Amino acid sequence: MSAPHLAPLDRTAAVAAIESAAAAYRNWGRWGDDDVLGTLNFVDDAKRLQAAGLVRRGATFSLSQAFDSHGPQNGWRRRTNPVHTMLDTGVDAALGSQGFPHGIGGADDVVFMPLQASTQWDGLGHIFDRGLAWNGRRAQDVVTSEGDLVTGIETTRDRFVSRGVLLDVGAVLGAGLGTGDELPDGFAITPEHLDLTIEAQGATADVGRGDIVLVRTGRLARARREGWNGYAGGPSAGLSFTSAGWLHSREIAAIATDTWGFEVRPNEFDDAFQPLHQIAIPNMGLFVGELWDLDELARDCHADGRWDFFLAAAPIQVTGAVGAPVNPLAVK
Amino acid sequence: MSAPHLAPLDRTAAVAAIESAAAAYRNWGRWGDDDVLGTLNFVDDAKRLQAAGLVRRGATFSLSQAFDSHGPQNGWRRRTNPVHTMLDTGVDAALGSQGFPHGIGGADDVVFMPLQASTQWDGLGHIFDRGLAWNGRRAQDVVTSEGDLVTGIETTRDRFVSRGVLLDVGAVLGAGLGTGDELPDGFAITPEHLDLTIEAQGATADVGRGDIVLVRTGRLARARREGWNGYAGGPSAGLSFTSAGWLHSREIAAIATDTWGFEVRPNEFDDAFQPLHQIAIPNMGLFVGELWDLDELARDCHADGRWDFFLAAAPIQVTGAVGAPVNPLAVK
Amino acid sequence: MSAPHLAPLDRTAAVAAIESAAAAYRNWGRWGDDDVLGTLNFVDDAKRLQAAGLVRRGATFSLSQAFDSHGPQNGWRRRTNPVHTMLDTGVDAALGSQGFPHGIGGADDVVFMPLQASTQWDGLGHIFDRGLAWNGRRAQDVVTSEGDLVTGIETTRDRFVSRGVLLDVGAVLGAGLGTGDELPDGFAITPEHLDLTIEAQGATADVGRGDIVLVRTGRLARARREGWNGYAGGPSAGLSFTSAGWLHSREIAAIATDTWGFEVRPNEFDDAFQPLHQIAIPNMGLFVGELWDLDELARDCHADGRWDFFLAAAPIQVTGAVGAPVNPLAVK
Amino acid sequence: MSAPHLAPLDRTAAVAAIESAAAAYRNWGRWGDDDVLGTLNFVDDAKRLQAAGLVRRGATFSLSQAFDSHGPQNGWRRRTNPVHTMLDTGVDAALGSQGFPHGIGGADDVVFMPLQASTQWDGLGHIFDRGLAWNGRRAQDVVTSEGDLVTGIETTRDRFVSRGVLLDVGAVLGAGLGTGDELPDGFAITPEHLDLTIEAQGATADVGRGDIVLVRTGRLARARREGWNGYAGGPSAGLSFTSAGWLHSREIAAIATDTWGFEVRPNEFDDAFQPLHQIAIPNMGLFVGELWDLDELARDCHADGRWDFFLAAAPIQVTGAVGAPVNPLAVK
Repeated sequence: MSAPHLAPLDRTAAVAAIESAAAAYRNWGRWGDDDVLGTLNFVDDAKRLQAAGLVRRGATFSLSQAFDSHGPQNGWRRRTNPVHTMLDTGVDAALGSQGFPHGIGGADDVVFMPLQASTQWDGLGHIFDRGLAWNGRRAQDVVTSEGDLVTGIETTRDRFVSRGVLLDVGAVLGAGLGTGDELPDGFAITPEHLDLTIEAQGATADVGRGDIVLVRTGRLARARREGWNGYAGGPSAGLSFTSAGWLHSREIAAIATDTWGFEVRPNEFDDAFQPLHQIAIPNMGLFVGELWDLDELARDCHADGRWDFFLAAAPIQVTGAVGAPVNPLAVK
Repeated sequence: MSAPHLAPLDRTAAVAAIESAAAAYRNWGRWGDDDVLGTLNFVDDAKRLQAAGLVRRGATFSLSQAFDSHGPQNGWRRRTNPVHTMLDTGVDAALGSQGFPHGIGGADDVVFMPLQASTQWDGLGHIFDRGLAWNGRRAQDVVTSEGDLVTGIETTRDRFVSRGVLLDVGAVLGAGLGTGDELPDGFAITPEHLDLTIEAQGATADVGRGDIVLVRTGRLARARREGWNGYAGGPSAGLSFTSAGWLHSREIAAIATDTWGFEVRPNEFDDAFQPLHQIAIPNMGLFVGELWDLDELARDCHADGRWDFFLAAAPIQVTGAVGAPVNPLAVK
Repeated sequence: MSAPHLAPLDRTAAVAAIESAAAAYRNWGRWGDDDVLGTLNFVDDAKRLQAAGLVRRGATFSLSQAFDSHGPQNGWRRRTNPVHTMLDTGVDAALGSQGFPHGIGGADDVVFMPLQASTQWDGLGHIFDRGLAWNGRRAQDVVTSEGDLVTGIETTRDRFVSRGVLLDVGAVLGAGLGTGDELPDGFAITPEHLDLTIEAQGATADVGRGDIVLVRTGRLARARREGWNGYAGGPSAGLSFTSAGWLHSREIAAIATDTWGFEVRPNEFDDAFQPLHQIAIPNMGLFVGELWDLDELARDCHADGRWDFFLAAAPIQVTGAVGAPVNPLAVK
Repeated sequence: MSAPHLAPLDRTAAVAAIESAAAAYRNWGRWGDDDVLGTLNFVDDAKRLQAAGLVRRGATFSLSQAFDSHGPQNGWRRRTNPVHTMLDTGVDAALGSQGFPHGIGGADDVVFMPLQASTQWDGLGHIFDRGLAWNGRRAQDVVTSEGDLVTGIETTRDRFVSRGVLLDVGAVLGAGLGTGDELPDGFAITPEHLDLTIEAQGATADVGRGDIVLVRTGRLARARREGWNGYAGGPSAGLSFTSAGWLHSREIAAIATDTWGFEVRPNEFDDAFQPLHQIAIPNMGLFVGELWDLDELARDCHADGRWDFFLAAAPIQVTGAVGAPVNPLAVK
């Protein structure tokens, strides 16, 4: 299976490149006019059964970053870090001010958070291409101030279970780059890099129809070591715009990375903003995960040499959400 | 394995009954002085491996209710329904006011919600018994205005995977009660009812060490049909205070129900508030799930006659949370 | 000064009546094409000087209802009551867990609230008439997901100071209706009722250019006595659609009531929603206050026989807000 | 009237200095055991009448900074900038998706904000001195997770009206310091500086019983020019700890500044945090305003040579708040 040919990127020609890639990789109508699931349609019962069969030790790995005020958000576009506050505490209980009978005390809490503040799935209503959403619907018919009326995250409620495959591009390429197991900021991961990584990792890293691909760049590891700096919105390694065809032809169900924005930053065109999103989400119907923590899982995969696993990553069911928090679990 | 004997409930003697049950079923120190996982310690790799082996068809079921403004909360104790608002919409994108280049448009959103507004796990810091939290810690040392500093939900990040068992007490007992597959409000589910249900459902419904038990009362089904009415905090079937010993002796990892509050409402003592919580959470270290939606899974279990399944139910990682939203997935 | 003639209301002819009233009372262009202040332009330095001259005793009255979880909101259209939570408390300080030096302790807090949850001013961007906002601007050019870009409440930051006049229509008409000092739900206050009230109250109740008129119906007093019931959005006395001309010809700066929605509920047309808003806000540019508490001030006015006063009612400066909380102060 | 003598500050002796000042300037019991208003008791009807008499031109000045995502907060101690989101917009109205009859459209909004995110009054429950709150109450009896149960901001609902006096210390001292009309960071404003400013400004700047004193340092003007930098919590000019006696002996009702924290930053003791707060709020019962914008008012005072005015500064009535947003209005 090979990706349609794409000419080398011309930094000044974002519009033409986007138009061409959108036309080449568009999945509109592939699963009917009413479809709301996009590439999640690639996952079927057989795939999930295969995924369950990958559990050999019963070891589990959470791929979630924390949701708290110490996260990477900086208020840009009103995205703050989560603010978690208490309605009742153990301190109140200890001082006997809660008014409950028979010695019971309680703590309770609330949270305010942008839905993409930390580990999340982008929903299909998150991005539009020239006014159109997934499957060719008009953006204004899909996401109003009431939320995503068509492809809200609740449509995926029981769908995020499949075979997961970790591609530790950071480790495979970082060695050659002299950057340890991390890619430098601005490094664009091309189809060749993805294939090289698969080859280096071996057969358990093969990627095919219905898989959920996790790409580790090492960006989070560096943020852990050096501070967030520009983690949210700033420079980072990430998928190249030229990977669109690879993502399309592999027929994967979803992709997630350990970065803020999935694709390389700065973007590969002048005056651009997340052009690969514009192909992947509204045109392919591809689900994209961001701000995942892949480090512990990567260590385990390096140790046991197996790069695939059962993955359950069901997002919180906020009705109409265009993105949603998730605590993804890998089981090996 | 049998539960320690408990005398019949005296409605006027809540304090004595709680003191006695707390002493009988307390697990403090069982997993060391530093333990923060309570009954989740019952789940080990072998258990998770067994759970994965229950996947036979690759069928998935989300056990989550919706998170939106149409939910059951009524503002009591400042618990509102989730409020989901948009930072950007498809309507804005359609009218070209977003200021992005090359035709990309976006939608983005935020949520404000009590962490126990909809489908959730209670954390171990949610309830105290006479000023003490799980493992005998002082409540004030565990949950301050900064959140749960010791047993915050993040300690469980990769732990909520196990064999799940659905006990459809509503269906098994409802028939005899003439209430269809739903229990009437105020119906207290005793150990005998649990055992009867297991017996009626057969061998796949056996409950043992490390299992996550899901008890369906039918309360949510009625709320769907008739409106929320008192779903949040009002009358409901639920576990009897007398089930504490059963919960303890079975060595289950967690329990969840399709009700607001897990235990029967009104409670079984005069002037009481959630006395079974007071035994289960701070004394046993038992994780309790509430507001789950078990109806679709129940229909499938009735159809195929198998009541156990792989369950992944990892809550959102709000640091320091005493309760946390989850989208639980059953895989059969 | 008399209002243009309006035919008696035909309940089935909302569209025609609205079109006619909008045309008759439209102030577009009156203060220039760039105007963002509408009827607040009627207040000038002389008016404010006159207002200050009304202070004779130094007595102050807050006209604000509370902002808390016990308010009238019921979640309709995602309007909850304010949720106020603590970031730090005196209980934490007492138990010494705050980590501050030299014995200082602190409490701090946050709020989540719809901007029209309690006592508020509607901004000029709150309502549109057939796609047009105040001064004839296109609605989509004024209020996007980023907020009101043109007439946000911040444009009024220093403007809400004027002579206030209280019209206690509830007391003046309630007597004749046998309803004490409260109007019955559904009672539509017409220009005749307003004039009757002014006449009954005497010269200090005269209403003219630049005044801020406060109309007391007694609806809040009843809610205090009997519970909120339908206070938010339900039946209530309020201004009649036929009062539009009176509001226009008097050249008042603003009007506020002790009700949820300013105009009579149910509205006076079949299948209607707040038709007087549609005339007052986008066409007249009139500022409307809702959920005010006029009871204590009314008692004082009855006692001293003076119905006008200095009024300072500057809303909180949430940039781009289409409504904003205010604690209005009357000084006599 | 002269302030009790205070020895020069010893940077290493915070505890002793605080203990001594607290004892010297404590107003506990001065207005009875039940008092919740502290220094607001200094304002009486006569004072308010005097204030109204200061209105000579009818000119108004808002002293509020903006409440939006571009403010000074940086997430420290979970204080974010306000997040304002829309429930409905003009864009939705323009595209006809709102479902309202007869051509009416609407916009509506919500806000999430720390109550001290922008221009605000500290309530008397905001600060404790060695476990005690205003009037000697135990901190735990005053502010629990339910909010301030005793001195919540609602107790001041109609009290913030008085004579205001602007002391432009930045302009008066900045000239001599070669820093224009701004004080350098870390500049501690002593009683001598306050008196010098009053003397320089003349008779209208006299400060006495019941006045609300506004101290302009120029810190906000610099933030406007150079960016927020450390405006929130960082270095700034502000009141010296040694001004406690001056604040006490003048019997002012309240004080507000154009800085984040009212007192000089860094504080004047080693290992200290806001020691003047510890004297002013729980001991004196003094209301403190922060994040005010005094620049436009200062320009007017320089122009007309009058430094006093009518001030109405009634905070939003969030029940139980320990701080509350306000849009203060000066009228001259």
